[in-house]
Amino acid sequence: MADIIIKNAYVLTMDPDAGDLKNGTILIEDGKITEIGEKTKESAETVIDAKGSLVMPGLVNTHTHASMSLFRGYADDLQLAEWLENNIWPAEAQLRAEDVYKGSLLACLEMIRSGTTSFADMYFFMDETAKAVEESGLRASLSHGLIELWNEEKGESDLKEGKRFVRAWQGAADGRIKTMYGPHAPNTCSDEYLAKVKEEARKDGAGIHIHVLETEAELNAMKERYGKCSVHLLDDIGFFGPDVLAAHCVWLSDGDIEILSKKGVNVSHNPVSNMKLASGIAPVYKMLEKGVNVTLGTDGCASNNNLDLFEEMKSAALLHKVNTGNPAALPARQVLGLATVNGAKALGTETGMLKAGKKADLIIVDMKKPHLIPCFDLASHLVYSARGSDVRTTIVDGKVLMDDYRVLVLDEQKVIEEAQKAAEELVARIKA
Amino acid sequence: MADIIIKNAYVLTMDPDAGDLKNGTILIEDGKITEIGEKTKESAETVIDAKGSLVMPGLVNTHTHASMSLFRGYADDLQLAEWLENNIWPAEAQLRAEDVYKGSLLACLEMIRSGTTSFADMYFFMDETAKAVEESGLRASLSHGLIELWNEEKGESDLKEGKRFVRAWQGAADGRIKTMYGPHAPNTCSDEYLAKVKEEARKDGAGIHIHVLETEAELNAMKERYGKCSVHLLDDIGFFGPDVLAAHCVWLSDGDIEILSKKGVNVSHNPVSNMKLASGIAPVYKMLEKGVNVTLGTDGCASNNNLDLFEEMKSAALLHKVNTGNPAALPARQVLGLATVNGAKALGTETGMLKAGKKADLIIVDMKKPHLIPCFDLASHLVYSARGSDVRTTIVDGKVLMDDYRVLVLDEQKVIEEAQKAAEELVARIKA
Repeated sequence: MADIIIKNAYVLTMDPDAGDLKNGTILIEDGKITEIGEKTKESAETVIDAKGSLVMPGLVNTHTHASMSLFRGYADDLQLAEWLENNIWPAEAQLRAEDVYKGSLLACLEMIRSGTTSFADMYFFMDETAKAVEESGLRASLSHGLIELWNEEKGESDLKEGKRFVRAWQGAADGRIKTMYGPHAPNTCSDEYLAKVKEEARKDGAGIHIHVLETEAELNAMKERYGKCSVHLLDDIGFFGPDVLAAHCVWLSDGDIEILSKKGVNVSHNPVSNMKLASGIAPVYKMLEKGVNVTLGTDGCASNNNLDLFEEMKSAALLHKVNTGNPAALPARQVLGLATVNGAKALGTETGMLKAGKKADLIIVDMKKPHLIPCFDLASHLVYSARGSDVRTTIVDGKVLMDDYRVLVLDEQKVIEEAQKAAEELVARIKA
Repeated sequence: MADIIIKNAYVLTMDPDAGDLKNGTILIEDGKITEIGEKTKESAETVIDAKGSLVMPGLVNTHTHASMSLFRGYADDLQLAEWLENNIWPAEAQLRAEDVYKGSLLACLEMIRSGTTSFADMYFFMDETAKAVEESGLRASLSHGLIELWNEEKGESDLKEGKRFVRAWQGAADGRIKTMYGPHAPNTCSDEYLAKVKEEARKDGAGIHIHVLETEAELNAMKERYGKCSVHLLDDIGFFGPDVLAAHCVWLSDGDIEILSKKGVNVSHNPVSNMKLASGIAPVYKMLEKGVNVTLGTDGCASNNNLDLFEEMKSAALLHKVNTGNPAALPARQVLGLATVNGAKALGTETGMLKAGKKADLIIVDMKKPHLIPCFDLASHLVYSARGSDVRTTIVDGKVLMDDYRVLVLDEQKVIEEAQKAAEELVARIKA
């Protein structure tokens, strides 16, 4: 007997061999999809009738800083230096471990509600984020941010903590938690330090999460310091491979794209954050043409200001259509691929596709709302018409985290109240 | 005794003299706001406790084609000519009056649910859209589209129908319906025809709704035909004034912006549609600097694909930040102004601001959802974090259209089913 049967659903499998099902049935057992098709002879403890709804793989957010949810709306519409130096950094300096826990729980709640089933995070007090992930039932790839700033002592101390975190949580929460090394960026860590981090990651068999060329300022600083850009530097020190997740990648040359493609680097495109901070427009159309594994991320709530990947999908499609002058660029199905199949590939998880043998990370989307009527094309609706709030059920690792809009795994009211209180106290400390 | 009292609300009045209220009370009587402040001595038949929610002016959608909701997701990700000539036009050719009624009702339902209280529409079978507006309780400025195409007979016939419509519905539905003339665009109507329409509008005291420079193709066609662009041509024939609502205005020169500013023309900026169709990026930052009354529109559902003005606000802010390279461009409060005060000014309605004497068109937004926590800045949350689905109550002309997520004025299930059926039959006719 299976654990869960979902029946009578439109199914967007994202499996190129299976395509879409008009009236699909999905069996889940021991955290995995065991059968998918039109009908089944099996029975299950829990039967979900998804008539009028759509089942698809859960969305994968490949770049965020979950606990920055506490800074949502704290500082907006400012010049970058003013935003970062006079607002975000002073706020981060006051963050305590318990704040990171409460902010991470709030972010997990928001992700469950908006259909995100796994995410990649780089920040600090990461044990707290890991606890929140464990508790919420989500899947995550977590890393402690390493910010050397050409200070050997700080570099060593960060690396030690990063290594401790990698080893402490690798495979935790029944395998839902993976850990990565998180060297911040090529303009905040020296080339020697980056090479050392790479070596440690290799020893531990862990992936690496890093910011790359988010701003033109980084590009200029790198050229001044090394006479070459971040991508060329990282390539020259043997940093790149399919184990690397590079966030942003806005200021890329055609040569950089060739390198990312050749080395199988995973790119996390963050269109909303890049637009909001006026960082620039990543050459996503070209990256996709060259076969780079492009995925989607929301970045933290201080620069978005939500974690809704449906919004991120639409923003990506719109931005690259207008930027290339080509309304056929980034069609809906391709964009869905970035947020599912490609995201799962980047995080190395057996998810992102509904197929027997894959982990059961999936969402059920209500398709009977006024803004989703009529229905001609499921993919178009998901990218251009739907919102995170249309997700009615969220399942991760075969466990139902939200059932018909009721979150089962967290005390929603308590999470909200504690996050609000933590944020207020944080601001009081900043202003003290 | 008042009709409605809303109490315990955060209030974003959008009235520069009043600012925001932390714990506000609003009195509504005979369709108008009669009192607004911290407390009241009055009583009312209906008392709405808005604790934890925010009250703000209803949003104004200054450019849409409501009944195109039936084409939502029908054709996407196509080159413009393929989209328009092989998909949208053949579909429109099969539209019947009853389809326009059903599509308009669906659009009204979606707008009520996402906090839009008035809209401007240019299309055909407009009696049907007017009926839907009357029934749904929304406020609208409606026009029959006039597409002369240098065919005198068609031009006359369209103008006759346009005039009949203007006179038949002006001030209908207790004044909620206003009518306008709707000459389609300067590249689909001759200069003589546009001058004639202007003359008729002047006689009837009606406004004019027109598409202007949506595409580079229009700019090129105008230069070839007249040796000048659409804005200069319209200015030269005395077309412009504060009675004109010009949609899109993407391909403007600095000189065009000067003209629009000097003549008090209202511009409807449609960022999502312009991005989706790759039409280009309107110079909104410059227009605002020059004092042009810029407002927001979603355009029709075939090029968006929803009618959510919250999404349009965020898209506008993001697009012009990245386009100008300035993260401080179009700050949240200014963007809220485009969607409220400026929109109301463009449609000439006594709405868009919460102030004694104004019409009671307002919405209540639930601020206790995970993606709206914590709350430091109401304006930032409305533009960068909220979605249309956070609107819990919608009031137009002092009448509650949606109360705590329950739509009171339409049979939601019936509207949805009939629109779905109409769309399916329409597609069957297209393919026949």
